[in-house]
Amino acid sequence: MIPTSQGQSAGSQPSVNALAAPLVSALVAEAAALRVAVERLPEGTTLVDAGIDQPGGLEAGRRIAEICMGGLGRVSLLSRGGRWPVAVSVHSSNPVLACLASQYAGWSLSAGAGEDAFHALGSGPARALAVREELFNELGYRDRASHGCLVLEVDKRPPAEVVDKVARDCGIAPQQLTLILTPTRSLAGVVQVVARVLEVALHKVHALGFPLERVIDGAGNAPIPPPAADFIVSMGRTNDAILFAGQVHLFVDAADDDARELAERLPSCTSRDYGKPFAQVFKDYGYDFYRIDPLLFAPAQVVVSCLKSGRSFHAGRIDTALLDASFGGGGA
Amino acid sequence: MIPTSQGQSAGSQPSVNALAAPLVSALVAEAAALRVAVERLPEGTTLVDAGIDQPGGLEAGRRIAEICMGGLGRVSLLSRGGRWPVAVSVHSSNPVLACLASQYAGWSLSAGAGEDAFHALGSGPARALAVREELFNELGYRDRASHGCLVLEVDKRPPAEVVDKVARDCGIAPQQLTLILTPTRSLAGVVQVVARVLEVALHKVHALGFPLERVIDGAGNAPIPPPAADFIVSMGRTNDAILFAGQVHLFVDAADDDARELAERLPSCTSRDYGKPFAQVFKDYGYDFYRIDPLLFAPAQVVVSCLKSGRSFHAGRIDTALLDASFGGGGA
Amino acid sequence: MIPTSQGQSAGSQPSVNALAAPLVSALVAEAAALRVAVERLPEGTTLVDAGIDQPGGLEAGRRIAEICMGGLGRVSLLSRGGRWPVAVSVHSSNPVLACLASQYAGWSLSAGAGEDAFHALGSGPARALAVREELFNELGYRDRASHGCLVLEVDKRPPAEVVDKVARDCGIAPQQLTLILTPTRSLAGVVQVVARVLEVALHKVHALGFPLERVIDGAGNAPIPPPAADFIVSMGRTNDAILFAGQVHLFVDAADDDARELAERLPSCTSRDYGKPFAQVFKDYGYDFYRIDPLLFAPAQVVVSCLKSGRSFHAGRIDTALLDASFGGGGA
Repeated sequence: MIPTSQGQSAGSQPSVNALAAPLVSALVAEAAALRVAVERLPEGTTLVDAGIDQPGGLEAGRRIAEICMGGLGRVSLLSRGGRWPVAVSVHSSNPVLACLASQYAGWSLSAGAGEDAFHALGSGPARALAVREELFNELGYRDRASHGCLVLEVDKRPPAEVVDKVARDCGIAPQQLTLILTPTRSLAGVVQVVARVLEVALHKVHALGFPLERVIDGAGNAPIPPPAADFIVSMGRTNDAILFAGQVHLFVDAADDDARELAERLPSCTSRDYGKPFAQVFKDYGYDFYRIDPLLFAPAQVVVSCLKSGRSFHAGRIDTALLDASFGGGGA
Repeated sequence: MIPTSQGQSAGSQPSVNALAAPLVSALVAEAAALRVAVERLPEGTTLVDAGIDQPGGLEAGRRIAEICMGGLGRVSLLSRGGRWPVAVSVHSSNPVLACLASQYAGWSLSAGAGEDAFHALGSGPARALAVREELFNELGYRDRASHGCLVLEVDKRPPAEVVDKVARDCGIAPQQLTLILTPTRSLAGVVQVVARVLEVALHKVHALGFPLERVIDGAGNAPIPPPAADFIVSMGRTNDAILFAGQVHLFVDAADDDARELAERLPSCTSRDYGKPFAQVFKDYGYDFYRIDPLLFAPAQVVVSCLKSGRSFHAGRIDTALLDASFGGGGA
Repeated sequence: MIPTSQGQSAGSQPSVNALAAPLVSALVAEAAALRVAVERLPEGTTLVDAGIDQPGGLEAGRRIAEICMGGLGRVSLLSRGGRWPVAVSVHSSNPVLACLASQYAGWSLSAGAGEDAFHALGSGPARALAVREELFNELGYRDRASHGCLVLEVDKRPPAEVVDKVARDCGIAPQQLTLILTPTRSLAGVVQVVARVLEVALHKVHALGFPLERVIDGAGNAPIPPPAADFIVSMGRTNDAILFAGQVHLFVDAADDDARELAERLPSCTSRDYGKPFAQVFKDYGYDFYRIDPLLFAPAQVVVSCLKSGRSFHAGRIDTALLDASFGGGGA
């Protein structure tokens, strides 16, 4: 009695670059309203400055966060009660794809040396064209759109060789590439980083060895920190927004024991490095990022719900005292 | 001195199917991103599987909830603080029309018998084409669009005779009909049911005999429960989300005494059956739905504001202990 | 190594009327759904009644609030916890322009005398065409769009001479003008007023002599009061929503001492007139608006964050007892 399906297959994967394209076009078209600047590089690549020489702002950051999620995410910027009243709420129609195949800042790009050195972590849908990261093998996803967009959390423009490399690795013409620059010290920058609260959870899910295909859905929220002109203070706060006050609810298709174990291991407070503002952790390790426990990067509080049993497992806690110590702390 | 009106009459009623049509088209166009499947039945009807053989998800459910409200509703899915951090917030440009003429699951559809029996409650804008329910006489509303959309809260595909009957009763060609399937055990299913928090309030307003034309506006919110593979657990939780934690604010054009009485009688806690998770209530009545007090179906907490006097009447309460007992309870 | 910019300059200012135009068109196109009426005046001006002879509603108010902000604002209407569960959350891609060059009700329009007198404060993007206010000299902004929209918080239609004057002062044809009427006693009216929470903060920032160009961004929230048929009660509550429960976070490019001083002086509680519902303040001054301390008009609670130092300054408090005294109070 089941009618023959003649229609579209839902098995076909969406293109994160195609889904993000209208959002990128809107960012460019509304550049003046959003206080970002659009430049055309000599090779034809479009460059959006969302906080280097332009003020940008909270809404520019919200838009860029949705671009980072490959058009598969919904990022709401809300003013609500509490000591830090501006917050993001994030969910996605396909969290693993949105967060790990697109939003995760996993593409390491470098050029030059010494004073002229440029280093950036690329995030956003163009990563899924270049598939330069091991992670894509596990995701089993690759985008083949003819245009792409990459977000760089930097405070200077990328050199031509980096722009060329990105286009080349993506297999697209330079004219079909858009690069968006969001310094960590800018308002747009802090919003788009904190909007990674769900991605941070999924990345730790993966690091813990929990099968990603068992994560069916999720949503998260975190407060927006005040940015600071000091890079380490600003970066520390974006991390602390998630580590001390980020909240994520995951819905998984797994056995109860696996879901319980995931919940128990997921929150930031399970890390040996939990307990002080991130800028301090970083300093105490001599500013060597790789000495920090990678499992520190996680939301403060999680709920993991099993779709089969209907059981939920809560773990972690929001720590407003640590949040205030981070957000309220002075600058450089 | 008042200028002659030559323009559009606001007295003309909007078409809930016409308003929902762009939302239905977007659901179909973005099927892969939303993880729903679109099938074309032999007769030409479009079928959207949002949770039977497809994962669907929270965002698919949010979209379907807005379709259910006939394009007259705004459903926001938010992650916020609290033990059950994902919640819906609902309002509408025309609550009585959105909720009762479209969203209410009031169209009973059956076919077959025994093992092959199919039974579903249809909700959404196509109800206003078919006007098969007594309620439409009181609403004084009927839609005459040439296309329609009906949402069925089922976990199997409808037989051809049900599809035929829906199109026939709606007076539209089968090719102009879209059916959306959302099992109660799916993520999309729980979201679109809990998004009925305002509708549940309006339905009880009607059951209490309060004139619907005096309800001018309203808004509501409720937490999203974890779904469960057990139908009764999942269904019970969607009810409990509203019964134990749903909150509704109504704005009425009525006398103070009538508004006060409405507020006092409206909350779920006024029902003789209030006080335990819905799955238990259902079990205790031998799984006979019709033995349950119909007045149980109501939000936990209400505010009724009189537009004339400006006075507001608060009643009911949110019961987090009962909510936890329902949401946290084990599966089948 | 920085590539030559050949693209769009972000220095060019957006047109608030052009950005609002699609929102105005949508309001007109969806008039029936939003329960507002659209009239064409003899001179060709479009008039939208959002609460005089039409019910309008919360969503109409939300839309009008975004129009008031010149298409540069995002106004979310949320149902959330608490005694007054419906609230607005507001932010903008350019707060100073959105709030002061567009949203502020600063254009005084009068005609007639005695019984026939018409007086209104015009708000919205058409103000920036007419630039009739001193404030525009300080803002250094003027719009030159060929069409415009003005919102009038009135409960009767404007006489022809006011309509003519608005079009003439804006330098546009009457056919290119849209007037939206939102009585203070209507649902749309209270929503669009309370959505001024961020504007109220910026207006006081300006009154305190803090340079507006140093305000880079901001966001705010406030609860929606129940409207009342009595004008003074309704108007008082919209003020009290902001004065007793409005919350604003500003991000400024300023020295710490200046930001601290701004925060300390900004909240409503710093005014000599703070401490009772606004309707009572107004009555106690013999209904003479100009005897009220202008510094009373401010959010209850503020955070001012310095973008340079990264320090934040908190001041003020939410007073739920005063809010309840205002919102819960009886009518005329």
